[in-house]
Amino acid sequence: MTYPGPVGKILESAGAEVGDVVEVRRGKEVYSGILMPHHDFSNPSIITLKLANGYNIGVRADEDSKIKIVSKKEAKEHAKRSLPSTPSKKDVAVISTGGTIASYVDYRTGAVHPAISAEELVFSVPELMDLCNVRAKVLYSILSENMKVAHWQGLARAVADELNSGAVGVIVPHGTDTLGFTSAALSFMLRNLTGPVVCVGAQRSSDRPSSDAIMNLLAATRLCVEGDLGEVVVLMHGETSDSYCLAHRGTKVRKMHSSRRDAFKSINADPVAKIEGTEITFMSQHTRRSPGPVELHDKIDGNASMLHFYPGFEAEHFDMIAGKVKGVVIAGTGLGHVSEEIVGSIRRAVKDGVHVFITTQCLHGAVNLNVYSTGRDMLTAGAVPIGDMLPETAYVKLMWAMGQTKDPAEVRKIMMTNVAGELSDRRLV
Amino acid sequence: MTYPGPVGKILESAGAEVGDVVEVRRGKEVYSGILMPHHDFSNPSIITLKLANGYNIGVRADEDSKIKIVSKKEAKEHAKRSLPSTPSKKDVAVISTGGTIASYVDYRTGAVHPAISAEELVFSVPELMDLCNVRAKVLYSILSENMKVAHWQGLARAVADELNSGAVGVIVPHGTDTLGFTSAALSFMLRNLTGPVVCVGAQRSSDRPSSDAIMNLLAATRLCVEGDLGEVVVLMHGETSDSYCLAHRGTKVRKMHSSRRDAFKSINADPVAKIEGTEITFMSQHTRRSPGPVELHDKIDGNASMLHFYPGFEAEHFDMIAGKVKGVVIAGTGLGHVSEEIVGSIRRAVKDGVHVFITTQCLHGAVNLNVYSTGRDMLTAGAVPIGDMLPETAYVKLMWAMGQTKDPAEVRKIMMTNVAGELSDRRLV
Repeated sequence: MTYPGPVGKILESAGAEVGDVVEVRRGKEVYSGILMPHHDFSNPSIITLKLANGYNIGVRADEDSKIKIVSKKEAKEHAKRSLPSTPSKKDVAVISTGGTIASYVDYRTGAVHPAISAEELVFSVPELMDLCNVRAKVLYSILSENMKVAHWQGLARAVADELNSGAVGVIVPHGTDTLGFTSAALSFMLRNLTGPVVCVGAQRSSDRPSSDAIMNLLAATRLCVEGDLGEVVVLMHGETSDSYCLAHRGTKVRKMHSSRRDAFKSINADPVAKIEGTEITFMSQHTRRSPGPVELHDKIDGNASMLHFYPGFEAEHFDMIAGKVKGVVIAGTGLGHVSEEIVGSIRRAVKDGVHVFITTQCLHGAVNLNVYSTGRDMLTAGAVPIGDMLPETAYVKLMWAMGQTKDPAEVRKIMMTNVAGELSDRRLV
Repeated sequence: MTYPGPVGKILESAGAEVGDVVEVRRGKEVYSGILMPHHDFSNPSIITLKLANGYNIGVRADEDSKIKIVSKKEAKEHAKRSLPSTPSKKDVAVISTGGTIASYVDYRTGAVHPAISAEELVFSVPELMDLCNVRAKVLYSILSENMKVAHWQGLARAVADELNSGAVGVIVPHGTDTLGFTSAALSFMLRNLTGPVVCVGAQRSSDRPSSDAIMNLLAATRLCVEGDLGEVVVLMHGETSDSYCLAHRGTKVRKMHSSRRDAFKSINADPVAKIEGTEITFMSQHTRRSPGPVELHDKIDGNASMLHFYPGFEAEHFDMIAGKVKGVVIAGTGLGHVSEEIVGSIRRAVKDGVHVFITTQCLHGAVNLNVYSTGRDMLTAGAVPIGDMLPETAYVKLMWAMGQTKDPAEVRKIMMTNVAGELSDRRLV
């Protein structure tokens, strides 16, 4: 985006374009660097320069500023070029949804905004294009906390389209906040996958030198091109350092740290694969590429809630929510417990036709309602324990199951069947 | 408890008492072992015997059964003895609240019930009495999922009483499900501690040979007698094997596995101490014993809720809950985010005088509402980020803070001040 207002005029009169190396002089201050694009959120009187050390800085500019072009942008500048395509290379689709991986830092405030295009994202990691032909598109440009059920559906359709039209894999750049929910939704909606669907995020935006975006994108591309995998995975750093990446099964992964680059962990499962440099090592049983075509089961009934039990949790609270939805996933304590008052609420809800499925807020381990009297009372009340499924995955799966059938017995059967690696059968008690 | 009905009569006519070694013969089946007490939940036609291998079994008995006494219970049988007291030893109080650590297995169903007395608990680990004089009492006998705010208050009072009347430490046997909530509540309610308050649980009931109860109780006793510690801690196995125990700070601990013996983990902190055999090693900065007296701040206002945000979380759901309470702790995604709809709900709630504090459902890491536009919108709406505090600890602390003062600014100040190690100051942004 070009600069607006007076700053735009100054740059224009100097003949400076985004991508040129420029010198900005105001009084005694002199800065030189690559002129970076202006973004909506930036202060209009600030010019953003990428310094030789890789850092971006914001430089205030006004009528007293002198702009000098040091060198015009090189011919390899790519802002408006289309992505190259070589017949000898395989196609990988990049369907961007937004988030830190596809964002930039506003150097006025230090804040991060979703902005850049899928093409920009790809061009920021030109090595991608050595590995494959990239088909890039921006499907959404949102922070992942604003993802909704309908976004999952649109994304599943776009992924199926790409795979069924010849892409060997699909990379989904996505905000990390709700990445685990989206990966679970894609895991249930997409069956018979002809290649990997790699949801990939970053904890540092891709215009920062310390970004994990580049390594994650490269590893995702390698997995798409070379990995014999027909599953949805989340791919992120395996350690805080840039040593290797891990691909986690889409239904068994959770963001377990607010800021670390290795925030994502496989829960109750080993990761699917480790990607270290050019090496892909599979770490657990996995589904291989299917001959296709990819099946899309994108119906979903969003009329469900997830509730975490805690001491002081009011039965009235449960009743209010359960009265408004068709299904509830409870993250109980320990083996899946709730207080005796909530057992009463479960009984009433089940009588009214509401599905009640039980998971554990411990996250690790399985639920078991046969050990303590509370658990047995919950079973009698009609609650259904669902093994070692993550609460978040169970919530997504419940909405998906309710979208697949209106028959309550069938919903229950789907919930208790392993569809996409979400349930270790031996843990279902 | 003695056996009721026909089985009671058979035992009575054989002269068999609980604690005797008996032989039960019915047709060709012969079992012998120590006659165990009957429990309310047990089938009245089943006799429970402890076999020589340590396992309990249930044996069906009727008029065809023959009972023979192999040997009368030994003189050292202790069911009705009071606990010994030696002037040379220090006093440690055991205030039992229930849970697996103070429970027994119903061998008819395999289910676990809360039942045994504090004395029974202590006598099941006679080594405790080598280390100290034990003052045992049963305050509650409940499964921890039924713990309420009022239970925390009663427990805090009982603990303060014991410490202020000379106990060098207090052991609180407690169900593991909500142990982290109780330990947080005690941490805030009890200040100026003259000795350790050790909340201790077990994942296998104490009448099982594989129980972790014995080692946990012994380590807790050692910490009470020998540890220079004036804090509330949760003490459990450090590994699945019986190698060592860890004492976790009461405000920084969470049950992270539904069944493993090392289920409890310190989050965003190192454990306070490692107890391996007779060795206590402190692992992080800690508060030493105070000269006393212990201060009790047991006022609490239970009118709060904890809400976990997720995609599809309805603003209406938030509004319903926020309309009924004085304070809400949100476990947001990533750095503490919620969707833009919920930002609107937060704004309305704060306007209505509801406290809204932000934590992260990642559990690990701190919240930071300055990085993304969503976070800044949340700040503008009046949400208050509270660093690296666990959601569960923040929920307990909010109720406690609202009990300490009616002044909203003061509540906010308390929440943002480190009271009992719940907040790493450098993480408060």
